[in-house]
Amino acid sequence: MDSTVVQYRHAGPDGDAVRTPMEAFNYPAWNLISFERGAAIPLYQQLFAQLRTLIVEGRIPRGARLPPSRLLSDELGLSRNTVVLAYEKLATEGYLQKRIGAGTFVERVFPEDHLPRPPAIEPPAEPQLAKPSARAEALLALDVPPERIERFGLSPGIPALNEFPYEVFARLAGQHWRAHAASHTGYDYARATPPLSLQIAAYLEETRGMVCRPEQILILSSTVQAAALAAHVLLNHGDRVLLEDPGHVTQMGTLTACGLEVEPVPVDEHGFDITAIDNRDPLPRLAVVSPIEQFPFGCTMSPARRRALLDWVRAGDRWILEDDFNSEIRWAGDPVSPLHASAPERVVYTSSFNRVLAPGLRLAYLVVPPGTVDAFKLAQRIFSFYAPLPDQALVAAFMSSGHLASHLRRMRAIYRERAGALADCLREHLGDGYIVPDVKAGLHLTIRSRREIDDRAIARRLIEREMDCPPLSRYCRSALRRHGFVLGFGNNPIKQIRRYAEILAQTAEQLG
Amino acid sequence: MDSTVVQYRHAGPDGDAVRTPMEAFNYPAWNLISFERGAAIPLYQQLFAQLRTLIVEGRIPRGARLPPSRLLSDELGLSRNTVVLAYEKLATEGYLQKRIGAGTFVERVFPEDHLPRPPAIEPPAEPQLAKPSARAEALLALDVPPERIERFGLSPGIPALNEFPYEVFARLAGQHWRAHAASHTGYDYARATPPLSLQIAAYLEETRGMVCRPEQILILSSTVQAAALAAHVLLNHGDRVLLEDPGHVTQMGTLTACGLEVEPVPVDEHGFDITAIDNRDPLPRLAVVSPIEQFPFGCTMSPARRRALLDWVRAGDRWILEDDFNSEIRWAGDPVSPLHASAPERVVYTSSFNRVLAPGLRLAYLVVPPGTVDAFKLAQRIFSFYAPLPDQALVAAFMSSGHLASHLRRMRAIYRERAGALADCLREHLGDGYIVPDVKAGLHLTIRSRREIDDRAIARRLIEREMDCPPLSRYCRSALRRHGFVLGFGNNPIKQIRRYAEILAQTAEQLG
Repeated sequence: MDSTVVQYRHAGPDGDAVRTPMEAFNYPAWNLISFERGAAIPLYQQLFAQLRTLIVEGRIPRGARLPPSRLLSDELGLSRNTVVLAYEKLATEGYLQKRIGAGTFVERVFPEDHLPRPPAIEPPAEPQLAKPSARAEALLALDVPPERIERFGLSPGIPALNEFPYEVFARLAGQHWRAHAASHTGYDYARATPPLSLQIAAYLEETRGMVCRPEQILILSSTVQAAALAAHVLLNHGDRVLLEDPGHVTQMGTLTACGLEVEPVPVDEHGFDITAIDNRDPLPRLAVVSPIEQFPFGCTMSPARRRALLDWVRAGDRWILEDDFNSEIRWAGDPVSPLHASAPERVVYTSSFNRVLAPGLRLAYLVVPPGTVDAFKLAQRIFSFYAPLPDQALVAAFMSSGHLASHLRRMRAIYRERAGALADCLREHLGDGYIVPDVKAGLHLTIRSRREIDDRAIARRLIEREMDCPPLSRYCRSALRRHGFVLGFGNNPIKQIRRYAEILAQTAEQLG
Repeated sequence: MDSTVVQYRHAGPDGDAVRTPMEAFNYPAWNLISFERGAAIPLYQQLFAQLRTLIVEGRIPRGARLPPSRLLSDELGLSRNTVVLAYEKLATEGYLQKRIGAGTFVERVFPEDHLPRPPAIEPPAEPQLAKPSARAEALLALDVPPERIERFGLSPGIPALNEFPYEVFARLAGQHWRAHAASHTGYDYARATPPLSLQIAAYLEETRGMVCRPEQILILSSTVQAAALAAHVLLNHGDRVLLEDPGHVTQMGTLTACGLEVEPVPVDEHGFDITAIDNRDPLPRLAVVSPIEQFPFGCTMSPARRRALLDWVRAGDRWILEDDFNSEIRWAGDPVSPLHASAPERVVYTSSFNRVLAPGLRLAYLVVPPGTVDAFKLAQRIFSFYAPLPDQALVAAFMSSGHLASHLRRMRAIYRERAGALADCLREHLGDGYIVPDVKAGLHLTIRSRREIDDRAIARRLIEREMDCPPLSRYCRSALRRHGFVLGFGNNPIKQIRRYAEILAQTAEQLG
């Protein structure tokens, strides 16, 4: 809850505190109490929960007398009733005792006292330091870029969070829970095709020209889980897989952890080139590509490379994992068909609601070839890659009632404007040292420096100024390292975008 | 939404349909329209969405005239206003055209017509049949028991879904979304400890005597994901891991898929016995146990075996994954401390909200040793094992306001009564052929047959009678196969429990 956090601080021993009646109750505990106003949790519940913790932890000792409600409410800036309610709840649950004429006291025996206390921990003769495994060390060494900080400036891949349809979700969520939908609190395993799969199938057909049955759609919580399932269902340990470079480093981490031999393939402005692959053993069996909007470059795969890739995948026991993370949000240029539409029997297609709705929903999906549905669904179950049913129902209702289509229409206009503003400001302030592309889709643009710069150092300095602009070199794996920044325009109004672009230009000049 | 589905069926050509004005508009499409009354989606939206699909799919042809709203509303049993609203929305979105004096017509050009159609799929000369990988075939061969069907009788592990606090969730969810909490629609990565981790840490301390910092708690969507993370962070490919037999077959599948050598260890009424393990190479490096409530037996590990297991784990670079899926719901006997409380530096502890709240929420958590927090959090990110932030906020608010404690108190009374009723009925009807245990906790009881029976055949017959009673042999991996059934009492009122127990006894006698 983004509301004001009010923290109560009692004047310390060195402060100018005048002597007040509260000093009689001066446990250090009061300093620890804070409130989140405007939050879903009522203030008296917040007070109750915190007092209980302080009591259980012994910070307010057993048997201690508590301040009268009027005194404490004055001290904490609460209404007296709030304190009375919290005290009453604590008394009901067995932590406080009211003695008429004497006041309110902490009980000497708590309800949880009958629980066995943990035996004292005997440290072993030579304490074993917890150490991750060698394969965990290898994952740590991958240097995966951190997740985005959405409240920082120009953070890429973040939609306009203030424009999220909160009121519609509030209404739909209330309706959902009030319908006492027992099937959404259970596993709902008996239902062959969840309502959200039906909505996604219709949506993919309408917006991308993809033909698939709802049974082919798995609802997951991220496109990374889609990659893990593809790795297990389609490939064996040690199989070779091709990835775009620069590209999604997290995805690379997952595929490595799934036992595959990962090979980054440099991409240029025409996208991924299958013909540049050497034919050494083992032959690659999977290509992971973002043909419509390459991440992070944003380029579209050329028709010739597209044809070559389709020829390659049809020529043997090979697969394509198509990561279409971005293509719903397009305001210019002809829409491009996904590879899936051309080779649905060989292409595994994944996308998410991260950008069209909100990353916090953690909702993604995977379209699998007809012959592999059973194996994918079993793997989904064995790995327990599921999204909560109430959330699925909420988003399905949002889609079926036409809200998603109108939300996307509205957002497209906003993003077009913001993208234009960012590109203009960058060209104005950055000078000739950078290539600033035109953007026709998505939530970010990637600028490239014409010469080698320490983009990581610049990015670190920008973090100090509350800007989240990941360095391009961080997404590069091969020797051919590109330098620049991945910049988001989705979550910042134009006025902010202008200011951030200026700071970026200044910082890049100072450290460049 | 569990509401009545009303399906409109137009009388077919062979029916006794009288000639009506609708016959002029007799596209087969009308037969496909159905409504879910009482659902979150208003009827006009349902009608709009279905008409749009029928129009886009060409089932109502371009240029066709639609029936007047009064006529269609009569035919579909809707108010006229509902049809008018749906028509208007279709017209606004560019699918219908109103011609004054002539009626309402389907547009000849749709908004999506500017999208490129998918190129015609050329089937390759020799069509490649999609085939799962060898390792996927191995997973398929594991014979993993299917997921539970919660609407069937005696389905194990299902809480009383009708007793779920729907109204509280409706209120909290409404408050949450109306607070426009932008931090919960983004990644919220900057926040070190999510509010739910704080709640869980306090809860584990209060109810289990476990001491851990909130930073040590990872919020996941299932305890199976916890096992996968432990496999990657603590163990290497090919490491040996010990599992209870009978036990969780899905967990075994995950650990196998994570590249571990999985060894099932037979358990008896004293639980898992580490001293029975042979000392061949490679030495086991992880034991996955449910010491408080063994699944499926429900027994508690004896103090001697507990000590032996703790000695084992402290003697080297070894780990315990403690799966405490069941212990919150206990109504008799002394509560047992988790192993984690005795060796927090060597025990990875996992549990979920499946039983205390609802499996449909897909919310679980993992407590990791202090020295491994960074590695676990990186692995969580690389595999993208996250639960949605709005759901986390909802459950955190539910806990902090004391609702979980009172919900559990109420449910404990219900489950005690149901468990007693099931045990009594089984003893009455089953006779001496089965061992029916007393149950003091959880949502299921496991009965064992004194002799070998075809429990799978009996379970299949029970499925036909809408009862979900998985056969015990399905959870056994070693040669020592036990026979019986895992029976749930959580989701059935006592009257139903009595009837189901009788059917079970009859079926077991017929096929036994």
